[in-house]
Amino acid sequence: MSKIWQATENHIDLHPLIESFTIDEDRELDLQLLPFDIEGTRAHAQSLLAAGIIDDEEKESIEATLSELLDEFNGSAAQIPEGMEDCHSLIEARLVEKLGPVGEKIHAGRSRNDQVLTALRLLQKSRFRSLERRLDRLVASLDAAIQRYQQFEMPGYSHGRRGMVITVGDWLGSYYELFAEDQIKVIDAIVELDRSPLGAGAGFGNGLGLDRRISARALGFSRVQKNSLACMGSRGKDELLCLHALCQIAVTASKFAADLLLFSSEHYGFVSLPDEFLTGSSMMPHKRNYDLLELVRANASVLNGYYTAVAGLITGLASGYHRDFQLTKKPLLDGFKRVAACVEVLILVVENLQVHPDAIASALDSDTQATQAALELVKSGMPFRQAYFQVREQCHGANCRSQSRKA
Amino acid sequence: MSKIWQATENHIDLHPLIESFTIDEDRELDLQLLPFDIEGTRAHAQSLLAAGIIDDEEKESIEATLSELLDEFNGSAAQIPEGMEDCHSLIEARLVEKLGPVGEKIHAGRSRNDQVLTALRLLQKSRFRSLERRLDRLVASLDAAIQRYQQFEMPGYSHGRRGMVITVGDWLGSYYELFAEDQIKVIDAIVELDRSPLGAGAGFGNGLGLDRRISARALGFSRVQKNSLACMGSRGKDELLCLHALCQIAVTASKFAADLLLFSSEHYGFVSLPDEFLTGSSMMPHKRNYDLLELVRANASVLNGYYTAVAGLITGLASGYHRDFQLTKKPLLDGFKRVAACVEVLILVVENLQVHPDAIASALDSDTQATQAALELVKSGMPFRQAYFQVREQCHGANCRSQSRKA
Amino acid sequence: MSKIWQATENHIDLHPLIESFTIDEDRELDLQLLPFDIEGTRAHAQSLLAAGIIDDEEKESIEATLSELLDEFNGSAAQIPEGMEDCHSLIEARLVEKLGPVGEKIHAGRSRNDQVLTALRLLQKSRFRSLERRLDRLVASLDAAIQRYQQFEMPGYSHGRRGMVITVGDWLGSYYELFAEDQIKVIDAIVELDRSPLGAGAGFGNGLGLDRRISARALGFSRVQKNSLACMGSRGKDELLCLHALCQIAVTASKFAADLLLFSSEHYGFVSLPDEFLTGSSMMPHKRNYDLLELVRANASVLNGYYTAVAGLITGLASGYHRDFQLTKKPLLDGFKRVAACVEVLILVVENLQVHPDAIASALDSDTQATQAALELVKSGMPFRQAYFQVREQCHGANCRSQSRKA
Amino acid sequence: MSKIWQATENHIDLHPLIESFTIDEDRELDLQLLPFDIEGTRAHAQSLLAAGIIDDEEKESIEATLSELLDEFNGSAAQIPEGMEDCHSLIEARLVEKLGPVGEKIHAGRSRNDQVLTALRLLQKSRFRSLERRLDRLVASLDAAIQRYQQFEMPGYSHGRRGMVITVGDWLGSYYELFAEDQIKVIDAIVELDRSPLGAGAGFGNGLGLDRRISARALGFSRVQKNSLACMGSRGKDELLCLHALCQIAVTASKFAADLLLFSSEHYGFVSLPDEFLTGSSMMPHKRNYDLLELVRANASVLNGYYTAVAGLITGLASGYHRDFQLTKKPLLDGFKRVAACVEVLILVVENLQVHPDAIASALDSDTQATQAALELVKSGMPFRQAYFQVREQCHGANCRSQSRKA
Repeated sequence: MSKIWQATENHIDLHPLIESFTIDEDRELDLQLLPFDIEGTRAHAQSLLAAGIIDDEEKESIEATLSELLDEFNGSAAQIPEGMEDCHSLIEARLVEKLGPVGEKIHAGRSRNDQVLTALRLLQKSRFRSLERRLDRLVASLDAAIQRYQQFEMPGYSHGRRGMVITVGDWLGSYYELFAEDQIKVIDAIVELDRSPLGAGAGFGNGLGLDRRISARALGFSRVQKNSLACMGSRGKDELLCLHALCQIAVTASKFAADLLLFSSEHYGFVSLPDEFLTGSSMMPHKRNYDLLELVRANASVLNGYYTAVAGLITGLASGYHRDFQLTKKPLLDGFKRVAACVEVLILVVENLQVHPDAIASALDSDTQATQAALELVKSGMPFRQAYFQVREQCHGANCRSQSRKA
Repeated sequence: MSKIWQATENHIDLHPLIESFTIDEDRELDLQLLPFDIEGTRAHAQSLLAAGIIDDEEKESIEATLSELLDEFNGSAAQIPEGMEDCHSLIEARLVEKLGPVGEKIHAGRSRNDQVLTALRLLQKSRFRSLERRLDRLVASLDAAIQRYQQFEMPGYSHGRRGMVITVGDWLGSYYELFAEDQIKVIDAIVELDRSPLGAGAGFGNGLGLDRRISARALGFSRVQKNSLACMGSRGKDELLCLHALCQIAVTASKFAADLLLFSSEHYGFVSLPDEFLTGSSMMPHKRNYDLLELVRANASVLNGYYTAVAGLITGLASGYHRDFQLTKKPLLDGFKRVAACVEVLILVVENLQVHPDAIASALDSDTQATQAALELVKSGMPFRQAYFQVREQCHGANCRSQSRKA
Repeated sequence: MSKIWQATENHIDLHPLIESFTIDEDRELDLQLLPFDIEGTRAHAQSLLAAGIIDDEEKESIEATLSELLDEFNGSAAQIPEGMEDCHSLIEARLVEKLGPVGEKIHAGRSRNDQVLTALRLLQKSRFRSLERRLDRLVASLDAAIQRYQQFEMPGYSHGRRGMVITVGDWLGSYYELFAEDQIKVIDAIVELDRSPLGAGAGFGNGLGLDRRISARALGFSRVQKNSLACMGSRGKDELLCLHALCQIAVTASKFAADLLLFSSEHYGFVSLPDEFLTGSSMMPHKRNYDLLELVRANASVLNGYYTAVAGLITGLASGYHRDFQLTKKPLLDGFKRVAACVEVLILVVENLQVHPDAIASALDSDTQATQAALELVKSGMPFRQAYFQVREQCHGANCRSQSRKA
Repeated sequence: MSKIWQATENHIDLHPLIESFTIDEDRELDLQLLPFDIEGTRAHAQSLLAAGIIDDEEKESIEATLSELLDEFNGSAAQIPEGMEDCHSLIEARLVEKLGPVGEKIHAGRSRNDQVLTALRLLQKSRFRSLERRLDRLVASLDAAIQRYQQFEMPGYSHGRRGMVITVGDWLGSYYELFAEDQIKVIDAIVELDRSPLGAGAGFGNGLGLDRRISARALGFSRVQKNSLACMGSRGKDELLCLHALCQIAVTASKFAADLLLFSSEHYGFVSLPDEFLTGSSMMPHKRNYDLLELVRANASVLNGYYTAVAGLITGLASGYHRDFQLTKKPLLDGFKRVAACVEVLILVVENLQVHPDAIASALDSDTQATQAALELVKSGMPFRQAYFQVREQCHGANCRSQSRKA
């Protein structure tokens, strides 16, 4: 296999095992990066034009070739050819193949290091913007459900035991607020990510005095990440930032799924989902399982594992690029994909959630009135702790049964 | 032991093993929470006054008693008495002891759930503000060092091998920028945390119609976290937010420590620290070790473990309070303490760092000039990839030795 | 503060901040290590005697002083003096204080590195042996409960929904088997840990040609861990081994707690615990919470965080001792403590578990018979998949309701 | 898409989004499970024969069809058809397609739950046996290298600083021992995994009174895992056991990689690898990077993330099967693959490692003699601590320079 860092003649081929080991899953993962890498390369061409390294005509031929490549990889069957190490090599190889010496100019003043950083950051911003819109839809669907069920009383649970009376709207409203707060984390992350690493080269600058603001502007970054070595140092840290925001969403989704799994079980019967959402058992004919919610719950642990992996990958690593960073790509890309899927599934769940008010009402036993009874005594002047013990002596529900029996 | 939820007479004592198991490390950890809990209690008294549950005189007596308690726990020898479950119980017990029925009024419309959430959030904001100031000092000390060493050239390392020439200022500047970026995460976290949970009760509201804006304002929160169940749902999620910002700082510190450990080793000799920073060996008389930097590096892994623990604790947990949340306290408190210590140590390190320009200069072999040589050819019109291979044929440093020998 | 690696005169004091930072929690944690360190020191004295470095009389005076020290630290109020760095320094300091030059001989041929490794390994074996006995008691208490409840039918749950009929004995029996399997992990770990690091010095041998089998035998190790550098390399890896076995127990305990929390909730009512195991709410008078089980469930996440921390601490670390290892101590010691406490609590829970057969029986609806009905058809010759669909058409329980309605 | 739990007529199709969400990566991952699932199915047919559910002829036709399927999936281009949910559905569908009612008999007395458990456990044992052989080869290659380099002295490093003199053989020998110890963990794991879950059905038994020893014996399991619900409960716990053993190997590999990266850097120059193992830079012509070792180092963090994910997935989960378990498959399969690759790469590295004795010898400065000098004084009767301080006064190497200057 030929590499961009290998002369066409007299080069020493990488040992095949080392080659496949070092490429790892890049050829597959880089399909997601390619469009952003093409965008970054186009911006780099503008920098080179401004610095006089290429001329207008060369820039246009580069742009045209990049557009062709983008079109070619738009279809779902596209693959990075086996002879290519990654998407970054593919771009230069294609430009050289089509444009000869002009193509050989494209990598002046950049390294794969700032190239991949640029593509990753564009991808991160793009994925987060999509996710933010998805969260908008989830929050809107929750809002609609809250309107529908606001009036129905239900027991609020604390320690998984009945506490006080709330409404179905209060319960759904808690997820409305939690997801809305998670959205803020996404927005904050976009702002933090919004700085251009292009022109940092391998962490030691581009060596050509390129005006980094040109490519930053072309790519829609609001600012330049100045110190070139800091650009390298933020590899992995940015991924951690992304994974943290994703974890937060996944944890909220996981809590919502846990509630729905409990409330849809036979012992509660508070809610249900239509049959086309449920799966069966290969052995037990009667089963209707809520696998979709179990997987929403489970994905939070996958995300947490990704956070751990990325944190481990970058901890204790000295400055500059290290190939270790490559293994942060899969957690990032798969993390975005999983959380997006969980949010989509929850939108569908909320839109199709069947609430059963009668079953819920039958769970409102006298215990759920106990606290309010004490507070009514407070309103009429009794110190709270006295009211609390007075009510306690009287309550007869499942919770206090044994206590009142003994005391 | 008596509990606030146990009548003084006829109550059933908790089994001693269950008692110590459920209290866990609370009596020790709550010493940190106590001042914030007193602040929260004072604000709650204002709410109760506004709602007519207590009168002015009662409020003043409560405030006076809280002030006495705060003074009592200011000293370092203070301890939560063995007979007390936690700091929250202590406060009510003390008010009842001093004020009788007036003290029994304090818990009207609140639960330990919103009480601890309030204290935690005040603590989180306070700890982050201190940390932000510490980071300011670290960044300032880096800035001073950058000024001192800006002019000294050094090799920039990529894959731990010499890449291109940078300056000591560039190297230190990368940490300046990374820590400054981490500071933004701290500031974002403070803004996110800045909402009052007080009045959410046990997740089902306070039942007294308290105006939650009163206590929020008294505590300096900029807004109220409205949905009471969402307040419970953010327990653990806020801790995750805090631990993420702490992890980011710890990772940057860990990278800086890794660089310093490498550059201070005998094989580099680029930097050193004064003897009063170094430790010896019990067996090897000649040793001067940089344990302090090893521990800075190591603390990032402790922090990552805490993130994992907290994420695990809240994943898959249904809505409402669960005692599981209790175990998020230690990671949070110890995380704040460890990161603050690492930053303090790094300030001292930067202020006392001895840079050895001669040793650094001697590491600038011809390899470190290779890339710039290729870029000079680019400036005179040669396509980059051609320039790259031309230089490669000529280089003779440690890196290319074997390659040029063969090619 | 004086250190064993500092001359009494003319030494340079460690900067106070660096001193407290590097000592971290050692003075507190080392209280647990001290008895094992004394045992290791006694064995080292035997090695020195055999090598002629000390004579019989000197060995006896060392042993006597060590015994005094052990007695002194037997009480619960014992503390490592503020002037001491750790328990290892304390031992040598005390020997020197009491015995003068004889005490100054004790550290010949050892380093704090093999000293702490030895103490840790003795502690690990000891803690695991206690844990194994605790698991014996837990398994025995489960066995007794199985005998009591073997005959009561209950629904078996899959996806948290009713599957087929099992017995309470089957359910409890699953934990019997899982804990018994965990016990095997403990036993395997003890066998793996059972090798002596003493005499490895700082990872480069003891330099005195000590016969390492002497101290190994004295300490009850079945073999010597030969390569000195490998001894250093197993620091952290042994802790990981311990934490893995602990995690496995904690996960089983967590699953058992999850079942018990569900089955004791108002919606199930299958089991309950006596009042002296339950906690109340500060706000809600009627509440009886199963906090003890929530904490058993939660501790598994704390353990997993410790595993992550230790794995992170040692990943990517070059050979030889690094101070990073110090931070593996807390996860190890606290992990042992937490899992031991969880097992103790579960023994108490199993011994006091109240099972409510009527409530359980009422949950055995017709759905739980569906699979067996299909299997009866299989016994009379019908292919299973046909039997499965035939039964499915007929079932009327909560699970199939909607499906049969539509199909 | 048709499912084995859906009637061919009148069934309700799963919502397409829910279908793709719940299938996740199963169609890809199950390619690895398929051969083991076929093996398990063949053993189940034997059980059914013994129980009289199928006759000899039916069993033979089932076996023949299974053999065809196995052949079909032997090639690398094989894919689980899009219409199939997983490999388990594929097997039954194929049997029904070929054999009609006979195929419809295969699932009598089993569930996908015990089916997948069986396939996974066979896979785990098989992967571990391969890994054990790989470790044998690694240990053998280390042994050969030790023989080659036994006599060369080198500095032993502690805290990354020179400690005492060891040999290259001692250094390599430490990895020999650590990997040999890791091998024991693999062997222990195989023994623990060696119990058959087949016949446990969905966790509530097979309902047909099948003799589980028959299939266990056919599959080469040494024993039956008796309690059916415990079989479900070990899902995830077995994966954790596997991942722990894999983590241990990955951590040792990571340490070895860290040493090799350091020792092959320009500042050490102790070892090197041939050019066909090294990669270049896209920007810097002179670079020869050791990416392969960086990836070996990095994979340990990926493995730790997988451990965290799996531990999180099963913590707090009540008894019985939950779809959450599905997400443990990827960590397990990818974990096995990554660790196998790392071991293969290290075998190649050890076999091709070039050691440079001159460079190593030049690093043996006087500091590395200091401890032995003190120990020589000990041999002639001086108490060690006195010898230690006497030598310390005299040493002049890099380590003590500043100390001796001041003291």
